[in-house]
Amino acid sequence: MRPLLTAEIIAVGTELLTPTRLDTNSLFITKCLAEYGITVRTKAVVGDSRDDLRAVFSSALTRTDVVVLTGGLGPTDDDLTRDVVAETLGRPMRQDPEVVERLRSRFARRGLQMPDINLRQALVPDGAVIVPNPNGTAPGLWLEHDQRVVVLLPGPPRELKPMMESLARERLTGRAGPSRVMTRVLRIAGQGESHAEEVARPFFALWRSEARGIDATTLAAPGSIDFHLSLRSEDASVGSARLEAAMRELAQAFGEDAYAQDEESMEEVVGNLLRDRRYTVAAAESCTGGLLTSRLTDVPGSSAYVQLSIVAYSNAAKTALLGVPAALITTHGAVSEPVAVSMAEGVRVRAGSTIGVGITGIAGPDGGTPDKPVGTVAIAVDGPWGTHVRTRALLGGREHIKFWATQAALDDVRRLLLRERR
Amino acid sequence: MRPLLTAEIIAVGTELLTPTRLDTNSLFITKCLAEYGITVRTKAVVGDSRDDLRAVFSSALTRTDVVVLTGGLGPTDDDLTRDVVAETLGRPMRQDPEVVERLRSRFARRGLQMPDINLRQALVPDGAVIVPNPNGTAPGLWLEHDQRVVVLLPGPPRELKPMMESLARERLTGRAGPSRVMTRVLRIAGQGESHAEEVARPFFALWRSEARGIDATTLAAPGSIDFHLSLRSEDASVGSARLEAAMRELAQAFGEDAYAQDEESMEEVVGNLLRDRRYTVAAAESCTGGLLTSRLTDVPGSSAYVQLSIVAYSNAAKTALLGVPAALITTHGAVSEPVAVSMAEGVRVRAGSTIGVGITGIAGPDGGTPDKPVGTVAIAVDGPWGTHVRTRALLGGREHIKFWATQAALDDVRRLLLRERR
Repeated sequence: MRPLLTAEIIAVGTELLTPTRLDTNSLFITKCLAEYGITVRTKAVVGDSRDDLRAVFSSALTRTDVVVLTGGLGPTDDDLTRDVVAETLGRPMRQDPEVVERLRSRFARRGLQMPDINLRQALVPDGAVIVPNPNGTAPGLWLEHDQRVVVLLPGPPRELKPMMESLARERLTGRAGPSRVMTRVLRIAGQGESHAEEVARPFFALWRSEARGIDATTLAAPGSIDFHLSLRSEDASVGSARLEAAMRELAQAFGEDAYAQDEESMEEVVGNLLRDRRYTVAAAESCTGGLLTSRLTDVPGSSAYVQLSIVAYSNAAKTALLGVPAALITTHGAVSEPVAVSMAEGVRVRAGSTIGVGITGIAGPDGGTPDKPVGTVAIAVDGPWGTHVRTRALLGGREHIKFWATQAALDDVRRLLLRERR
Repeated sequence: MRPLLTAEIIAVGTELLTPTRLDTNSLFITKCLAEYGITVRTKAVVGDSRDDLRAVFSSALTRTDVVVLTGGLGPTDDDLTRDVVAETLGRPMRQDPEVVERLRSRFARRGLQMPDINLRQALVPDGAVIVPNPNGTAPGLWLEHDQRVVVLLPGPPRELKPMMESLARERLTGRAGPSRVMTRVLRIAGQGESHAEEVARPFFALWRSEARGIDATTLAAPGSIDFHLSLRSEDASVGSARLEAAMRELAQAFGEDAYAQDEESMEEVVGNLLRDRRYTVAAAESCTGGLLTSRLTDVPGSSAYVQLSIVAYSNAAKTALLGVPAALITTHGAVSEPVAVSMAEGVRVRAGSTIGVGITGIAGPDGGTPDKPVGTVAIAVDGPWGTHVRTRALLGGREHIKFWATQAALDDVRRLLLRERR
């Protein structure tokens, strides 16, 4: 029998087509399938419509080895999944006495008589294997058809999850190919997407063409470009060694710009560097409004290196709490490198910390001038090596500029800490 | 020309097929389309694969009036959406000089030269209308084909949203059918989901059965229960009056717990109350690490009422910067109501603000004790009316507890401001 390599997930239910609901089951199913080397190639959401479900299901059957359908297994007329699958595969439906019995006893245990309507849940397409549902009435179904597998699971996550797990364990082992999919992530800071891509592209091409079989994609987020490397391999240690080598090549090409691997965030990277050196950090924030410190303290155990920060939004606060000379603000403006430096120095002295960070800028939408447009942010880092200051021109809306400014400040701290070691 | 009634949304990008990423753009698009009475019948997610995208797109074209594709408009070889759409519709691609010019000047504004790779973003299928992208390089495209409309939008939400909005306004008006779907949201704080549901359920039943035709769903988020009311009507003023009446009924049932309508956030509600009264606020944050102040300053114009905050993570900082007596911390512990009160009073005095907020708690995962488990948070609000303090037991992980604590603090400020007026 041919191994199962690719899958499509189809979520059924009109409520999943409203502006407030997402199909989240597919994330869990994707994870289960990946462990058996099965790649999800497409996902779909279909309402309770016979025609749409038939069209989407038929099309999935022509393209993938496994089709997982979730939802639409309830007892009402709206629940069409069983019907449409049986009809599309040309399998007659029969009432399964075992399922009837299980349904009856489930109701009986709660002192209830089973409504006749629930008998619909005992109708199964010919040849289907029944997957018991410990947390609900709708049984799951496993069908094999023309070298393909079709799986039907109920929609509620607490019913679906244990069923998917037991299915994967019991039926996918041995049916999946011998290979598994492995993934690594390299994260880049301080570069735009296009420039980072230009550096990475030769590697991507090489990895593909050399038959190293590594597939790479790029994901741009504010202040971070993430390269996702993945590979399919039959030998876990060979596969992870090949991925590791690729990660090294790419990291080397980006040098200091490669700030993290896999799920690590910028605040975790900086936190680890601080912790290793037994350093502490304090921030004087203006336009970022506390977000830098909030991100630093998102990391468990950050109390080891964060003691204090001051959000000085007004000029008076900058002078009173951070000791920024009023004349400095008058001469250079609140958003200026001298003021950022004075904020960083001021908070470092007051906190008695190893490092002080000062951020002052214009988050918008108002407050910009031709000279200093919205997005102008001066970031100073004061430390044992002296003071580093830089002005950035950030784009986007208010929250975007706030986030990007904190990312840039964390990145500055990271680079200064790394250079210190050399 | 036939009115546009149904749509399919196709999200393109391999990263959306991993176990960690969902396509959330489709929610926003669904909402925009609903306003023009256009119902989303199916949604799909496709990787960066020419074959899969072609198959899914072709199939969508046979079933719906509008096909919206998101993502895959970047400058790299992975970005296939433009290509596949042009090929499927049989339209040759041409380089658009206006787009080239816009791209060049976008790079020039940032002092950069456009990489050649970005020229791909100026390739457009014949007959396409270009939708400018104020927040990024990839322009959107609008194509009419055989009575159908095909829309291409970039993947990043902050680029997609304004483009979708302007498209809907400028091009869907007049092309859609006569009915519109209208939606209103009522937001509740200080109640759990089940209790809020119990209050709301009789209304939901009444609205449906009375043929008022209002459909209601509940969405639970950290620190907020949102009731979404929607209705389809051909007469906008009749429809919105019916929705408005329902909102009033529900808001009355929840009293003070109903904190916001529609898209308003808790920080906006509090900001408006402060601005109306010409009040200012200052925060002394411990376990929330600056997140409260960051949320307050997410609101444009918040510099009118936020001047200063102090993140006092260590006990030493609480004493030195906020004047919390060391003895108070020794006697009651850093996480205690007396310390929260002293922090609120301390920051209020130092900032000279109308209101001072003090937050101290255990965000976890470490630091909990049997007496004060992880999630214990004391919140004090000091104002012209005296001091209010309350300890909450919050559930969840570190970031969840941080967010929930800031939500509770903002809600306390809101209620105290509302009661002041009575």
